[in-house]
Amino acid sequence: MSETRIEPCLFIILGATGDLTRRKLLPALYHLAAQGLLGRNCRILGAARRAEWDDEAFRAMAREALAAVGLTVDDRCTHWCDECLHYQSIGRGQPEDYRALAARIEELERTHHLPGNRVFYLALPPVAFPGTITALGQTGLNRSAGWTRLVIEKPFGRDLASAEELNRLVHQYFDESQTYRIDHYLGKETVQNLLAFRFGNALFESLWNRDRVENVQITVAEQLGVGSRAGYYEQAGALRDMVQNHLTQLLTLTAMEVPGAFEADAIRYEKIKVLRSVEPIRPEDVVLGQYAPGRINGRAVPGYRQEPGVAPDSRTETFVAMRLEIANWRWQGVPFYLRTGKRLSRRVTQIVVTFRCPPVSLFRSSDGPGIRPNILVITLQPDEGFDLSFEVKAPGQTMALQAHRMRFRYDEVFGPLPDAYETLLLDVLTGDQTLFVHADEVEASWRLYTPLLQRRLPVHPYPAGTWGPREADHLLSRMKDAWTIL
Amino acid sequence: MSETRIEPCLFIILGATGDLTRRKLLPALYHLAAQGLLGRNCRILGAARRAEWDDEAFRAMAREALAAVGLTVDDRCTHWCDECLHYQSIGRGQPEDYRALAARIEELERTHHLPGNRVFYLALPPVAFPGTITALGQTGLNRSAGWTRLVIEKPFGRDLASAEELNRLVHQYFDESQTYRIDHYLGKETVQNLLAFRFGNALFESLWNRDRVENVQITVAEQLGVGSRAGYYEQAGALRDMVQNHLTQLLTLTAMEVPGAFEADAIRYEKIKVLRSVEPIRPEDVVLGQYAPGRINGRAVPGYRQEPGVAPDSRTETFVAMRLEIANWRWQGVPFYLRTGKRLSRRVTQIVVTFRCPPVSLFRSSDGPGIRPNILVITLQPDEGFDLSFEVKAPGQTMALQAHRMRFRYDEVFGPLPDAYETLLLDVLTGDQTLFVHADEVEASWRLYTPLLQRRLPVHPYPAGTWGPREADHLLSRMKDAWTIL
Repeated sequence: MSETRIEPCLFIILGATGDLTRRKLLPALYHLAAQGLLGRNCRILGAARRAEWDDEAFRAMAREALAAVGLTVDDRCTHWCDECLHYQSIGRGQPEDYRALAARIEELERTHHLPGNRVFYLALPPVAFPGTITALGQTGLNRSAGWTRLVIEKPFGRDLASAEELNRLVHQYFDESQTYRIDHYLGKETVQNLLAFRFGNALFESLWNRDRVENVQITVAEQLGVGSRAGYYEQAGALRDMVQNHLTQLLTLTAMEVPGAFEADAIRYEKIKVLRSVEPIRPEDVVLGQYAPGRINGRAVPGYRQEPGVAPDSRTETFVAMRLEIANWRWQGVPFYLRTGKRLSRRVTQIVVTFRCPPVSLFRSSDGPGIRPNILVITLQPDEGFDLSFEVKAPGQTMALQAHRMRFRYDEVFGPLPDAYETLLLDVLTGDQTLFVHADEVEASWRLYTPLLQRRLPVHPYPAGTWGPREADHLLSRMKDAWTIL
Repeated sequence: MSETRIEPCLFIILGATGDLTRRKLLPALYHLAAQGLLGRNCRILGAARRAEWDDEAFRAMAREALAAVGLTVDDRCTHWCDECLHYQSIGRGQPEDYRALAARIEELERTHHLPGNRVFYLALPPVAFPGTITALGQTGLNRSAGWTRLVIEKPFGRDLASAEELNRLVHQYFDESQTYRIDHYLGKETVQNLLAFRFGNALFESLWNRDRVENVQITVAEQLGVGSRAGYYEQAGALRDMVQNHLTQLLTLTAMEVPGAFEADAIRYEKIKVLRSVEPIRPEDVVLGQYAPGRINGRAVPGYRQEPGVAPDSRTETFVAMRLEIANWRWQGVPFYLRTGKRLSRRVTQIVVTFRCPPVSLFRSSDGPGIRPNILVITLQPDEGFDLSFEVKAPGQTMALQAHRMRFRYDEVFGPLPDAYETLLLDVLTGDQTLFVHADEVEASWRLYTPLLQRRLPVHPYPAGTWGPREADHLLSRMKDAWTIL
């Protein structure tokens, strides 16, 4: 990954009055500016429908948005808003609206001596992607005197066909090297920590294969319900919303081979290779669930079907558990278990690598007769770190073992990590595509899950506040495995 | 190791008025009694030269000794002393003295209905071993109606010839299965922890070989000087006092193969196998040192030659560092570095296993360009535990790694561990020889070091409070290694 060196540029946000802009983009951009990483020759141009807005209205919104996320809106901050933020309406998105946008961009670049480097950030609902991309292309905004980069938020398609179609459209106007498909779930630090852990430590890398690993589990558990997002979620479900993107990212980062270099192309190539090695997922290896009423932290919560905006007979899954096999030299025969859900017992994202047990046991366990495996737990949320469980002798006259842990937590050493958006925007601005999803990767991922979306798999109810339907436990117990969470 | 089940017995201490009895044996025996492990049918008979002493004098000494180590001498304690402690003089150790001892033993066994199980604990200086063993044997005290066990304190010989001679004498009267050569340095818990760690954790055992390990370092560092022991130490030196026994124990426990079972015979067999695979030590792989005046914790301390009782031109080594090679399938080519000394920088006993580096580095280090290895540190003193150093990414824009640690400490989980003597005496009483040194092991160890004792190796001075002479660093840097301590 490259050194931080941001060239003068114009950062154009399409959807500048929306939630994402307020909650994430403006705070992240201001943070970067406050750290001196974005100078005055990095201007932000908000674009949205509202025709009555001007620069000042956008700046007022920005100050409000920054205050709302807890930032101190002091002189420096106000000064940044006044100096660097601009607004341009794109009205109803007609050709003349985009020509006006292009004119405004050129005017700003002229006035502020910018070399024509541009980011177009689509902070828009997916339905607006095709029209916006086409309009940008047809207005000639896909090329400039400097570089032009297009940032697209997830979801990128809703199955293989729609993803392919969207990719075709993007590629009609933009090169893949201009395209940044963002998956904010994985902050840059988190991914880098994971890759540094794997490839900076020969110890673990030498254990990272079918000879030493019994199974790998990836859990992304939320306590929240669908909240106000039912409109979107009813059409999506957990498989599209979480598995196809976030969990698949974690899967490929965990399973990938050592890349030839720590560079975007090399890393993205290895991730795609993993996806292409995953065996077709058998329907009997997938468990879908939907939360029923239950309790979260002692508080009664409604079931999914009782949430506002959800159909009373909705079959949308809020939980997915599945078993994957990766048919390559490293992983053949090692089950990879993925699990995600809303309204689960607690909020946690963990990759759990269970190593093979000793072939024979010289000892007995203090809490049962069995041999226990060593387990490496990589926690991504809420407290990023590593735990290695191992067996120690319990003091006393008998030779009995107990499982204990060696532990490491990032925040205890380094303090809080930066927000995901902050580092991802910096990557866009420096042209580092490592953490952005390649067109081939998107398609390979949809290729894997689309057959499941086309089937009418049973959806098992589970009480809110549990770890999902019992069928998810059977999925593992069938293989003599069990879900592990720290 | 067997369950705790102590049969009624008589525990005879030869040297009952000495320092070891006061400081270690009586406190350990009382602790065992207080825990209910030693009942009233376990009697202690102190034997020593003093003819004027009787049971009461010995009991008074015991109460005083228990108070001196910080135990509360309450009614229960006084009651134990009065009920279970006895004394018998052996005068000048003439045959009639031993016959009187035998008579007293039989009388106590009759009075208290003991079945004839006996421990003879030689809490004596080494010079008294042969005479005492012979006297016991000639008086017929080597056999009884129950079991008879002989406990011998280190040092066991001062070279191969003397160790062989002592073994021959012991075996003239006692079977090897009756003989308990004690090396208190390794408490039972410590050894068991080490073996449990190795053989209860497939993760580490799978890394424990020449393919994964770069080198192994064993450091036993003392801050203390020779103190009042110059008389003994001038004749011994660090090679006899520490390397031949303690460090060699740690070496064999670290390097041994997985035993067939967790039993004395199986474990001792594997330890002996290690010793027999050690290549003859080349004199150029040994560095001897002797402390010169220096500073410990900011306080000036004299050099060894300035200590009371030390010859002003003494050539006795107070420091040894050496490189060993174990020529077996597991370890061929992996250097084992041993190091011990008095008046070193701090008090610490650690086994440091340095794993091989990644074959190529994808990253750079935040504190230099090099690739660093993963390191496992097993600390035995002062705070028993494990640390695994590994590389993590330092937060920030560049992909730079920093070494950090996962850690585990026994006392944080289990509280303080029992004293070594307590658990070792319990082993003697239950007949578990696992932690006691076999005759073959003693001889194999002396066989290794005796050629070095017969040479006049240079003795390099080092300032007190350092890590020994510079030559000890060269010993490793020659191999592109370096001493590591946590």
